[in-house]
Amino acid sequence: MKVAIIFGSKSDTEVMRGAAKCLREFNIPFEAHVLSAHRVPEKLTEVLKKLEEEGCEAIIAGAGLAAHLPGVIASKTIIPVIGVPINAAINGVDSLYSIVQMPKSIPVATVGINNSYNGGMMAVQMLSVKYPEIKDKLKEYRKNMKENFIKENEAGVEL
Amino acid sequence: MKVAIIFGSKSDTEVMRGAAKCLREFNIPFEAHVLSAHRVPEKLTEVLKKLEEEGCEAIIAGAGLAAHLPGVIASKTIIPVIGVPINAAINGVDSLYSIVQMPKSIPVATVGINNSYNGGMMAVQMLSVKYPEIKDKLKEYRKNMKENFIKENEAGVEL
Amino acid sequence: MKVAIIFGSKSDTEVMRGAAKCLREFNIPFEAHVLSAHRVPEKLTEVLKKLEEEGCEAIIAGAGLAAHLPGVIASKTIIPVIGVPINAAINGVDSLYSIVQMPKSIPVATVGINNSYNGGMMAVQMLSVKYPEIKDKLKEYRKNMKENFIKENEAGVEL
Amino acid sequence: MKVAIIFGSKSDTEVMRGAAKCLREFNIPFEAHVLSAHRVPEKLTEVLKKLEEEGCEAIIAGAGLAAHLPGVIASKTIIPVIGVPINAAINGVDSLYSIVQMPKSIPVATVGINNSYNGGMMAVQMLSVKYPEIKDKLKEYRKNMKENFIKENEAGVEL
Amino acid sequence: MKVAIIFGSKSDTEVMRGAAKCLREFNIPFEAHVLSAHRVPEKLTEVLKKLEEEGCEAIIAGAGLAAHLPGVIASKTIIPVIGVPINAAINGVDSLYSIVQMPKSIPVATVGINNSYNGGMMAVQMLSVKYPEIKDKLKEYRKNMKENFIKENEAGVEL
Amino acid sequence: MKVAIIFGSKSDTEVMRGAAKCLREFNIPFEAHVLSAHRVPEKLTEVLKKLEEEGCEAIIAGAGLAAHLPGVIASKTIIPVIGVPINAAINGVDSLYSIVQMPKSIPVATVGINNSYNGGMMAVQMLSVKYPEIKDKLKEYRKNMKENFIKENEAGVEL
Amino acid sequence: MKVAIIFGSKSDTEVMRGAAKCLREFNIPFEAHVLSAHRVPEKLTEVLKKLEEEGCEAIIAGAGLAAHLPGVIASKTIIPVIGVPINAAINGVDSLYSIVQMPKSIPVATVGINNSYNGGMMAVQMLSVKYPEIKDKLKEYRKNMKENFIKENEAGVEL
Amino acid sequence: MKVAIIFGSKSDTEVMRGAAKCLREFNIPFEAHVLSAHRVPEKLTEVLKKLEEEGCEAIIAGAGLAAHLPGVIASKTIIPVIGVPINAAINGVDSLYSIVQMPKSIPVATVGINNSYNGGMMAVQMLSVKYPEIKDKLKEYRKNMKENFIKENEAGVEL
Repeated sequence: MKVAIIFGSKSDTEVMRGAAKCLREFNIPFEAHVLSAHRVPEKLTEVLKKLEEEGCEAIIAGAGLAAHLPGVIASKTIIPVIGVPINAAINGVDSLYSIVQMPKSIPVATVGINNSYNGGMMAVQMLSVKYPEIKDKLKEYRKNMKENFIKENEAGVEL
Repeated sequence: MKVAIIFGSKSDTEVMRGAAKCLREFNIPFEAHVLSAHRVPEKLTEVLKKLEEEGCEAIIAGAGLAAHLPGVIASKTIIPVIGVPINAAINGVDSLYSIVQMPKSIPVATVGINNSYNGGMMAVQMLSVKYPEIKDKLKEYRKNMKENFIKENEAGVEL
Repeated sequence: MKVAIIFGSKSDTEVMRGAAKCLREFNIPFEAHVLSAHRVPEKLTEVLKKLEEEGCEAIIAGAGLAAHLPGVIASKTIIPVIGVPINAAINGVDSLYSIVQMPKSIPVATVGINNSYNGGMMAVQMLSVKYPEIKDKLKEYRKNMKENFIKENEAGVEL
Repeated sequence: MKVAIIFGSKSDTEVMRGAAKCLREFNIPFEAHVLSAHRVPEKLTEVLKKLEEEGCEAIIAGAGLAAHLPGVIASKTIIPVIGVPINAAINGVDSLYSIVQMPKSIPVATVGINNSYNGGMMAVQMLSVKYPEIKDKLKEYRKNMKENFIKENEAGVEL
Repeated sequence: MKVAIIFGSKSDTEVMRGAAKCLREFNIPFEAHVLSAHRVPEKLTEVLKKLEEEGCEAIIAGAGLAAHLPGVIASKTIIPVIGVPINAAINGVDSLYSIVQMPKSIPVATVGINNSYNGGMMAVQMLSVKYPEIKDKLKEYRKNMKENFIKENEAGVEL
Repeated sequence: MKVAIIFGSKSDTEVMRGAAKCLREFNIPFEAHVLSAHRVPEKLTEVLKKLEEEGCEAIIAGAGLAAHLPGVIASKTIIPVIGVPINAAINGVDSLYSIVQMPKSIPVATVGINNSYNGGMMAVQMLSVKYPEIKDKLKEYRKNMKENFIKENEAGVEL
Repeated sequence: MKVAIIFGSKSDTEVMRGAAKCLREFNIPFEAHVLSAHRVPEKLTEVLKKLEEEGCEAIIAGAGLAAHLPGVIASKTIIPVIGVPINAAINGVDSLYSIVQMPKSIPVATVGINNSYNGGMMAVQMLSVKYPEIKDKLKEYRKNMKENFIKENEAGVEL
Repeated sequence: MKVAIIFGSKSDTEVMRGAAKCLREFNIPFEAHVLSAHRVPEKLTEVLKKLEEEGCEAIIAGAGLAAHLPGVIASKTIIPVIGVPINAAINGVDSLYSIVQMPKSIPVATVGINNSYNGGMMAVQMLSVKYPEIKDKLKEYRKNMKENFIKENEAGVEL
């Protein structure tokens, strides 16, 4: 079991840390690559091939502007691709449209703008279908999420 | 293995047929429900519980306007939820935002506006991680997609 | 007579203070809750039930992003719900659409982006229909608003 | 108890019928006026005064384009005003912004674009705070809504 | 000959200085008022009446959010109204729509977002139709504008 | 006294009729030209020169898409220019932005999308500053507008 | 000298005819391909290689939705790529953003939404830099454009 | 061989440096002009004429707001014009629309918002069609781009 996190530029590193954080919380091994659909297409193809051979089971791809990376990855592999729109202009709406509006047959599972943590979580949920231990952790996570939420807020809020 | 297709109103049936069409192409059993997060929340909870018990492994949820259904489902189950924004106003941008911009920890895997076929395909891809036979069919599908595309267009196009 | 202010995250506290400020100006008792439609749905249901039992007569609900909270509350109670879209991305347009575009039969009374004071004021106006003393205060408030506006600006403005 | 429905042009009649339909379902008396904030401001003031005298308890105001009518009404009365954005251009986004983005202290309770039924329903909910019989009908309505939804969809849906 | 500059809140003073600056460059007398269509409608009516009596020949009105002020002024006087959308949210698009999309028969001459200088200039151009001395100054202004532009840029630009 | 109506393509004729209709209602002589800033810039310059010589006192310019025509005219003459954004794509938002967002010193008095009648009315209002007879007609027009509005709607409206 | 017109689906044929029409007007040989960056990436690479070998000097690429095709082509060849956004949803704004917002170093020369004729014309202009005969035709074309515009409109327009 | 970089205001200098940087990387001579379509149209015409005489082969034009400059240049010359939308308001969407949505026959080759480097690169690509040495450099550039990308990222990225 392995997940890959791929994004197009080192400048996106901070935004994409959320995905890694989430995967670590679930002890899911991952590798991260800075790869560009436009600059190094052969390298991208090569990495995707290697990921397929190594049994990678979900790819989280982040990109800004005319964010082609997630869609191009999705066209080159049948590993499910999760797209994270990154806000680099126009509040990230350009990136959101470029990722989510994929043509028939080659979807990208898009999450919220700059919300790479949710990209990680969607990978966790996908893997939980296959791996009972992740499913269990996910149930635990949701349970904790509730409990923590209640604990953090039980003191009420002063307005 | 089972997939559920859920949407909020019978008027969305036509748009959502694409998801069913895709699942049928892969012989993936599914059930469809018209359910509303706002009108019948208890019924929704009940159906989701039954789906979990029956081992449902992906939910495709379509909604228009303030499209809460996919996100509410995602909050009630750990089964991965695929969201299909339906254009009922403002070109579907209201629905897209309401589905994709989920808060941290509870993502919805959003596909393109009105593109329920891609909702089906994302379910297929998610399941292919677990089921080798679906993975094989998916490879075959992609191969056929290519070949058909080439065949359909080999006669060229007259402009 | 009581009003509830509910929002989805402690990080929204500052934005939501306006609602409290307005209610205090009218001596309307209120209680505030940080509650999430997605993280603690049962807790939300429980709080809403308690609010109904205690005779709560208006709920002001603020949320950002895919802002489901006001609509989910509206679906769970017949207490009128006032929605405050919070700008957390895309200038708050995502939140505005997610709150205002509710389906037929379950409206949310939406006010301006980040304008929680107006959320409070709408609660005041709703209550003024029932409570003559609030109606009187509201007339007084409007009168003062006018007089203060004139006083503040009677010295003219230097351009 | 009385509600007023006000809109700016006879051409908006069809869109605004939903509000009347909803009020009739609750046997709430209403009167309808075609009035323009810009064309007949004195007439508008006069009608609002009369409405106040007659004890009108909610106003549903619909308008398109630079939809000032709901906000102008809100500034002239303390009766709560519910705004219905009407799509006459730019998918109704111009109207939505013109209604919902009211300045501090003078809110308009905005509902969805062209969704005048929800305008009616918000009036019903506001009145239910004061009138137990409307509250009871509203509970009944919600119960029926659920039951009807379930009945209509219990045969399932064929995709 | 006189021009009025009206805006809805002291917080808009900085943005509106441009209009005054432009009018001063043409020695056109003006008076400035902070007035609100919603807070002090009677005061607004009164000021407009006085402006009409004093022969005011153009009104520059600035407003943000649901910017009703220019349109409400336009409905209350036949003095031509120039609208300046002020960016207070959503990049000023809410204000632009609320000002420019006026209904048939009651236009507001809208200029660019935050561009009050152009509001002043449009007043100058309107007055130049009647006053030959302003027309002459305007020709001179345009001539100087050209010459200054050329002078400022004749040294070229270093990229 | 004369007004010119200029637009960029015969296909805009229908949209621009409103301006002519309005001017005819005020017996204001006008001439109409189909002229393009991009296709026949010299012809445009020539016509503008002739208009200036003939004492033209307002220009109504309509254009769609990247609607440069009103702004280019405004840069070539000091006659005040009224811009009518025409919806040819993107709901006319492209045209609106291209007309209203003019740089400092060269404004276009922009009216609503496709609302050429208001373009005509703004010309009427501008001319009314100079011509008492137009001012009188305008007062009459407004009076009639009110009376007609009231007459048309006095029978009430059936919802 | 040769130009290629490439688009992603036969359903785009009508929109793309404009490019062919323009090239024919200049007697510029072209070939058209229906090719998809996502469905047949290898075929696309192959065609681009052949185009390079045959000395193709401009590529006009049209696409809708998440319109990756022009940008992917631009990343695979140094032949200049002209992008035509096709309106398939959201008024074509999704496609426009996906084409024009390319990352640093790999531009696509984007023209207007659905405006494939301008895609053809941009190819003509690019080639005119190298080929004097095209430059001459272009001058002739512009001259005719002017003359035809004047001729078509010299009869004036009746409003 | 020569390229011109033209923009409308010295305040755009920083944004436009990218174009110069790119041209320098390819040793392509260029000249830069601050010129305004609206302020100094005659000067613009004069400069364009001189550029044509001197054999200028591409023009990169940057502008913000109602960005007419690139389109006006395109209408005055047959030299291909590359448009760079500059973000001065509304995230640059006003500028993008004003540049890209040119009417039939007079395109502007538009690149990304604030992305003047890509404006330079598009000029390089256009010139590479004619000049084999630029074509060679472009191939080298792309090769280096790939190699540098790989080198910079071969150490991997730590998330």
